[in-house]
Amino acid sequence: MNNYCLTLQYEGTRYDGWQKQGNTKNTIQGRLETILTQLCDEPITLIGSGRTDAGAHAAGQKANFHTQKTWQPETLLTEVNRRLPRDIGVVAVSIEKPAFHARFSAKEKTYCYRVWNSTVPNVLSGRYYFQSPAPLDISAMEQAAALFLGEHDFQSFCAARPGKKSTVRTIYAIDIDQKGPKVAIWVRGNGFLYQMVRILCGTLLEVGEGKRPAESMQPLLEAKNRSLAGITLPARGLMLMEVRYDHDEK
Amino acid sequence: MNNYCLTLQYEGTRYDGWQKQGNTKNTIQGRLETILTQLCDEPITLIGSGRTDAGAHAAGQKANFHTQKTWQPETLLTEVNRRLPRDIGVVAVSIEKPAFHARFSAKEKTYCYRVWNSTVPNVLSGRYYFQSPAPLDISAMEQAAALFLGEHDFQSFCAARPGKKSTVRTIYAIDIDQKGPKVAIWVRGNGFLYQMVRILCGTLLEVGEGKRPAESMQPLLEAKNRSLAGITLPARGLMLMEVRYDHDEK
Repeated sequence: MNNYCLTLQYEGTRYDGWQKQGNTKNTIQGRLETILTQLCDEPITLIGSGRTDAGAHAAGQKANFHTQKTWQPETLLTEVNRRLPRDIGVVAVSIEKPAFHARFSAKEKTYCYRVWNSTVPNVLSGRYYFQSPAPLDISAMEQAAALFLGEHDFQSFCAARPGKKSTVRTIYAIDIDQKGPKVAIWVRGNGFLYQMVRILCGTLLEVGEGKRPAESMQPLLEAKNRSLAGITLPARGLMLMEVRYDHDEK
Repeated sequence: MNNYCLTLQYEGTRYDGWQKQGNTKNTIQGRLETILTQLCDEPITLIGSGRTDAGAHAAGQKANFHTQKTWQPETLLTEVNRRLPRDIGVVAVSIEKPAFHARFSAKEKTYCYRVWNSTVPNVLSGRYYFQSPAPLDISAMEQAAALFLGEHDFQSFCAARPGKKSTVRTIYAIDIDQKGPKVAIWVRGNGFLYQMVRILCGTLLEVGEGKRPAESMQPLLEAKNRSLAGITLPARGLMLMEVRYDHDEK
């Protein structure tokens, strides 16, 4: 049995997210599984590093699958890309050990949330930005972000979802990068809860707009109450940038 | 009579180019004129700095119009943007003297042609790139490009079009910028013939691929024969970056 890992990019605008669900066929996972099943002549299940929301994007999603069929990585890359629409693409293929699992083996994920901080529209890359024209106090946002670093219970920053257990996660870094009207919030951690990055960034944006003091992040974490945190920002600004595994450090 | 100049951006993918033509309604000019006519309560004719081809993009197109109505530039910007689809936007509005004419007053234009020089697809900004995986000799392309600088008859680099007079144009600069798989060819001149940038870049690409020697640009210019030049590259890689007027230098 071979185990292949795909590095994927997609513009999520016209898809219902990563994960196949009930009668929704228009998912990234669904599109890829159909193609892989055809190419491998057997039913393929593709394991993503995690779900990405409807409308969210990826520059470095990872997903693996097992197959009896043996592929040269470059051949697999070319054949899959030939069958994909332009807004989904395989940018790398690697051969992994049998136990490698794109979700369970993941050690670290990096997301970027992009805000277009201007009254003028972002025409040429607007698909990747949430437009918010109110002036932002970036240093207040950085102060607030610092309070999220480390291990915390992020229940206040998680959309309710039955069946989820621990809401404890570790954030390694949050960097806020401003270049003219482009504000990018980079969040790196060991894993993220449902809509956590969008709620976290929504709350940071409210700090930046002066609607909340930076210090209020501490009691907000302690409250463990979603309704006290900021808004869930739209998926269009969210991009999964990188997923890291132990073997990346070899 | 007021004379307003709009700075426009658009992703041209789903439009039939800048210019209104016969029964084609799906043009950038057409979309804007409809909106301006509504807003100004009188028929508006919008004068672009020049046509852009179907599928080509703009980061800095300029267009002016005359109206009886008086606008605050910011109000006009907001009102037009509110009515435009997401892939067209006004990024600046200026008040001009009565004689200003976006086409006749233009002194200099800069286009950028983007090539994605890789076998791996460009998923996230593929709308702005022409994918060409063959390895490129950039220094040969630069040598060839140098032969186009200055005033020349560019008839060999112009798609046949009845009614056009002089095919003499001046190119001020051609810069080729390579960052990993991204190759950007920047062309600055006093004006360009129909499809000239796409043919010029198609020819340079053939030099880069070793299909033509750099020195052959000189006899090619002298031949004044379109059929001897390279292919017309697809419009998707082409973007009008900037149009300059004398008043820019004030």
